[in-house]
Amino acid sequence: MYFFKKYPKLLLIMLLLLVVVPQAYANGANINMQDLLIGVVIVIFAAKLGGDLFVRLKQPAVLGELVFGMIVGNLSLFGFSCFEFIKTDPGIEVLAEIGVILLLFQVGLESNIKQMMKVGLSAFLVACIGVITPFLLGFLVAHIFIKDEGLYAHLFIGATLCATSVGLTARVLMDLGKIATKEAQIILGAAVIDDVLGLIVLATITGLIESVAKGTTMSVMSIVMIVVKAFIFLILAIVLGRLLSKYMFKAGSKLRADNVVLSVGITLCFVFAFISGLIGLAPIVGAFAAGLVMDDIHYRDYEKFREKKIDEIIAPIAGLMVPIFFVRMGASVDLSTFAKPSVLLLALCLTIAAILGKQACALAVCEKGLNKLSVGVGMIPRGEVGLIFAATGARLVLDGQPVVNSNTYSAIIIMVIITTMITPPVLKAVLSRKETHKNDKIVHDEKV
Amino acid sequence: MYFFKKYPKLLLIMLLLLVVVPQAYANGANINMQDLLIGVVIVIFAAKLGGDLFVRLKQPAVLGELVFGMIVGNLSLFGFSCFEFIKTDPGIEVLAEIGVILLLFQVGLESNIKQMMKVGLSAFLVACIGVITPFLLGFLVAHIFIKDEGLYAHLFIGATLCATSVGLTARVLMDLGKIATKEAQIILGAAVIDDVLGLIVLATITGLIESVAKGTTMSVMSIVMIVVKAFIFLILAIVLGRLLSKYMFKAGSKLRADNVVLSVGITLCFVFAFISGLIGLAPIVGAFAAGLVMDDIHYRDYEKFREKKIDEIIAPIAGLMVPIFFVRMGASVDLSTFAKPSVLLLALCLTIAAILGKQACALAVCEKGLNKLSVGVGMIPRGEVGLIFAATGARLVLDGQPVVNSNTYSAIIIMVIITTMITPPVLKAVLSRKETHKNDKIVHDEKV
Repeated sequence: MYFFKKYPKLLLIMLLLLVVVPQAYANGANINMQDLLIGVVIVIFAAKLGGDLFVRLKQPAVLGELVFGMIVGNLSLFGFSCFEFIKTDPGIEVLAEIGVILLLFQVGLESNIKQMMKVGLSAFLVACIGVITPFLLGFLVAHIFIKDEGLYAHLFIGATLCATSVGLTARVLMDLGKIATKEAQIILGAAVIDDVLGLIVLATITGLIESVAKGTTMSVMSIVMIVVKAFIFLILAIVLGRLLSKYMFKAGSKLRADNVVLSVGITLCFVFAFISGLIGLAPIVGAFAAGLVMDDIHYRDYEKFREKKIDEIIAPIAGLMVPIFFVRMGASVDLSTFAKPSVLLLALCLTIAAILGKQACALAVCEKGLNKLSVGVGMIPRGEVGLIFAATGARLVLDGQPVVNSNTYSAIIIMVIITTMITPPVLKAVLSRKETHKNDKIVHDEKV
Repeated sequence: MYFFKKYPKLLLIMLLLLVVVPQAYANGANINMQDLLIGVVIVIFAAKLGGDLFVRLKQPAVLGELVFGMIVGNLSLFGFSCFEFIKTDPGIEVLAEIGVILLLFQVGLESNIKQMMKVGLSAFLVACIGVITPFLLGFLVAHIFIKDEGLYAHLFIGATLCATSVGLTARVLMDLGKIATKEAQIILGAAVIDDVLGLIVLATITGLIESVAKGTTMSVMSIVMIVVKAFIFLILAIVLGRLLSKYMFKAGSKLRADNVVLSVGITLCFVFAFISGLIGLAPIVGAFAAGLVMDDIHYRDYEKFREKKIDEIIAPIAGLMVPIFFVRMGASVDLSTFAKPSVLLLALCLTIAAILGKQACALAVCEKGLNKLSVGVGMIPRGEVGLIFAATGARLVLDGQPVVNSNTYSAIIIMVIITTMITPPVLKAVLSRKETHKNDKIVHDEKV
């Protein structure tokens, strides 16, 4: 303890010697570490404050993250542009994108492949209806309100309404502790299939427009090739994935290294996400599949892994990155698009079409005694998938004009925002209705 | 189970329907998610394989990560350029840079501020000698071998030899389970002070050269301002940091949100790293300070935090990202620089100067009965800090010539590589000598 008292003096001397080069460490780096550090702090702050407030209001935390992200991202409307970098910082984008991949991996881990297959028919039918009816309703609304913009804009709006943001719904179900219910399994299964079907629609329409622009027709062969690749991937993911997971843990058990369970988990998740992206699916589809096939029993046999649980190991990493994804998603909303009346009218009608279109999904649930309404509600949010569709349309050019013009684009964005924002509270309300309690309990007991 | 048997058929139908847009999801993104995903997998693979091999060879895992990183990064010499993107991918850089910040945060958490202050005088003296002697020896070697390149090149080489890679030494000490020993506390304390002193030297020489190039003189006032800012930061970090940490956990305890301990920990760590970077210090210095001031007792009082331990929560995040940092560090080594004899001779002499210069540090250890040699050895690696110094010199231009030319740069790089590569095995050997065992035990018992 002798030195403890003397320390301040030496500290003083040491500090007086300090001469430092601003940004000496930033030299030669591709990324701005300072922006990333403070950006993450701001995002965490917004996420926790927003989460806290909305939990107090008895809403899922994710809604608070979205709303506070929206506030942070739109302070520039009030002259504070110091937070603008959060929307574009590549470091924050990296963490957000890994966050949503880990979220779907977590959801996959909590889902049970056998449970999922029990509701597979429902999920498939729900997904099909969830693509067809919103597409038709969206096309109809576009045909009525923006007749002048031509067939392709109408088709594109229809396509945008097909999407389902599985990430958002999954997070709400996790926040509410309902992920193991049959309804949740149907929603998640359908949302994943939806992702695939939605991409088919997007691919077809995009290909059609590009062909028209070039004066050629679509190649059937190229579509067949993609189908074959996707087929091989999904077979590997669901059938061979379990074997691969077992084998990887067996190989990992022989490694004299730290964090083997973590490394195997992340590797399987990222490889599946990569392959999924490679064949044109969203990486989150692969991450979900990886979580689905990975099971505790694959490593419980190895003594040194016995105390590890993959979901507990992933939890802190996801806990850091997932809120970054949702705050960033909120921040990307541009509130100034809410200004034009004609845009607002189109947006309103599209939103109604988007919501009603997905409610038809409830009709496809085959199982009895389930909360069918919750399935329809769970399919509502378009989220980041809808945003990507809209952005694709805005970039496509036909006869010198963008297929989706700026007003239509704004209307689509508003539809995406509203469907994304209303889902958490409505889903919570629907799932909390008395009649569901019994069913939840049964499914829970089955799993335990 | 009814549906389980029927599933394959439906799966087949569903899959036949798959048509997907390659890279549809990559549109509009700043980062290439596919490169990031597969890059992380490759890096984890290299890290775990390398770690495993070197642990079997009874060496610290970090050495294996460096060596396997070097292999992955230099496969282009043998015609395989498919892994080149790992060196430049911004996503991997983000994870690596956060990794080294979390590593120093972990080291700070495992260090005890009182223990550290007990060895504060030694650490300070070790740091001073560790800057002065390598500087003089480096200057001397440069003066003998590359006399023609002028005073500023000589000064710059001297400055490069001042650096100490606290990240690498900290990781070796962690791998060996020696982080709580007095020797480790001296090395870490000295390495952090060294970082500060090294930056002073770099700042002074850089400022001097820039002034000469412009025909002006350095502003004393600008140096004083930086000193004042650094002074305020370190006072806040060490004295007020504990209060801040307590306050943040108190505020956090009122939040109805998940992952509060994680969020508070990351926030404190990133804020300190940010401020550290803002005033021109390395962000890792701030991260270390944040870990140092944060203590279990700051949140053990809150019932809902009782089961959480900040170091256990950080462990999986660091476990994912820290190996990425070391593999990337290895990958950045260009093995083709080992080719020219004149460069090799200069490199050899610089390496000897670098090693001997830091051995003088051992003389500054005041405490009796300590393994002084281990302190000298622990200060050897230049690591990423040395690389940053060299890169700064290569970018400075005087009379139309770079201050550090390409041959000298290569020699510095080789010196950095060798000092970085020999430290793990030598430090392990030195720390394993019989005489240290008694001391380790005493310090460990004190802590427990």
